[in-house]
Amino acid sequence: MPQGQPLTVPADGLTTRARRNAPLLAVHTGPGKGKSTAAFGMALRAWNQGFSVAVFQFVKSAKWKVGEETALSELGRVHDERGVGGPVEWHKMGAGWSWTRKPGTEIDHAAAAADGWAEISRRLADERHDFYVLDEFTYPLKWGWVDTDDVVEVLVSRPGTQHVVITGRDAPPALLDAADLVTEMTKVKHPMDAGRKGQKGIEW
Amino acid sequence: MPQGQPLTVPADGLTTRARRNAPLLAVHTGPGKGKSTAAFGMALRAWNQGFSVAVFQFVKSAKWKVGEETALSELGRVHDERGVGGPVEWHKMGAGWSWTRKPGTEIDHAAAAADGWAEISRRLADERHDFYVLDEFTYPLKWGWVDTDDVVEVLVSRPGTQHVVITGRDAPPALLDAADLVTEMTKVKHPMDAGRKGQKGIEW
Repeated sequence: MPQGQPLTVPADGLTTRARRNAPLLAVHTGPGKGKSTAAFGMALRAWNQGFSVAVFQFVKSAKWKVGEETALSELGRVHDERGVGGPVEWHKMGAGWSWTRKPGTEIDHAAAAADGWAEISRRLADERHDFYVLDEFTYPLKWGWVDTDDVVEVLVSRPGTQHVVITGRDAPPALLDAADLVTEMTKVKHPMDAGRKGQKGIEW
Repeated sequence: MPQGQPLTVPADGLTTRARRNAPLLAVHTGPGKGKSTAAFGMALRAWNQGFSVAVFQFVKSAKWKVGEETALSELGRVHDERGVGGPVEWHKMGAGWSWTRKPGTEIDHAAAAADGWAEISRRLADERHDFYVLDEFTYPLKWGWVDTDDVVEVLVSRPGTQHVVITGRDAPPALLDAADLVTEMTKVKHPMDAGRKGQKGIEW
């Protein structure tokens, strides 16, 4: 993307540099493809800048997004072994969060979602990471498993320069209001409409 | 993404397996963010499946998308060194294509774009790669540097199971008609509207 000129210069008393370093809250929503995929693409840039990247997947099944997980984990390994890029953590609710998992126990998804958010809250307070992907996080908000007002409050008041990208359909209006960047992915044409099923290397 | 059921089963005489292996032509267009980013995110999945990934950037400046280039190149190195994932090639028009570059010469962008497409055409005919990203390729089409009818003809008749993702605003209608998957990225809110400039780790 070209480095565009801002349409307006805000009267916020900040220098361009301060504004440039402001933490970004981005939301990718809408019914189209590419919401999560674009978030993981953004993570590549963050990784390249040496940012600490953490992904939290709020999905039921641990089998989804294996490709992105493997790729970003390998980039984390590149960081650990060769000092290129930043460290990467990948956490999955569907498999039980790594910090709470008890093998063999059934997962209560509502409780797991609330627990995931509590952990993210703590990490934001501690400024643990530079770049967070909260993948499909709009669903626990929509279903009331996690309180949207609490999320907005924590995000708006997070310390430092921690960037957060949230993905999923039907993002609540309060979250959109709080976001700096909102992109809606609109489905114009999709192969499943023509009877195709998911494909290796494309859907997973 | 959940593995959804198709809305209709087409009367094309193909088995689900044949349809599943059909090559995908995807277009990411619209004025919003995430078009290229989502394409690079898709490349992570393709890489993880061991696909040969090739990116062709149709942009004037070689300095853009450095983060994604470094990350995908490192994944290519992971493939070469450890046999994980697939090989990755990254070609930039702005720096002169690697197969035509003469150091110190000025680049004629229209000719370079036509030359880039000619090379991609040859590679498609040879089934050289499994997953192509033609980044910002809509602009040379729009400006008439590359003939849209020729592009559509080559893409529609490409052999094998080569997946192609094309990004950029104002994709021509004939390309959208030929595509299997079209996603439009719509700008709902953007920090530059509020006077912010690009940020390290976010925009580059």
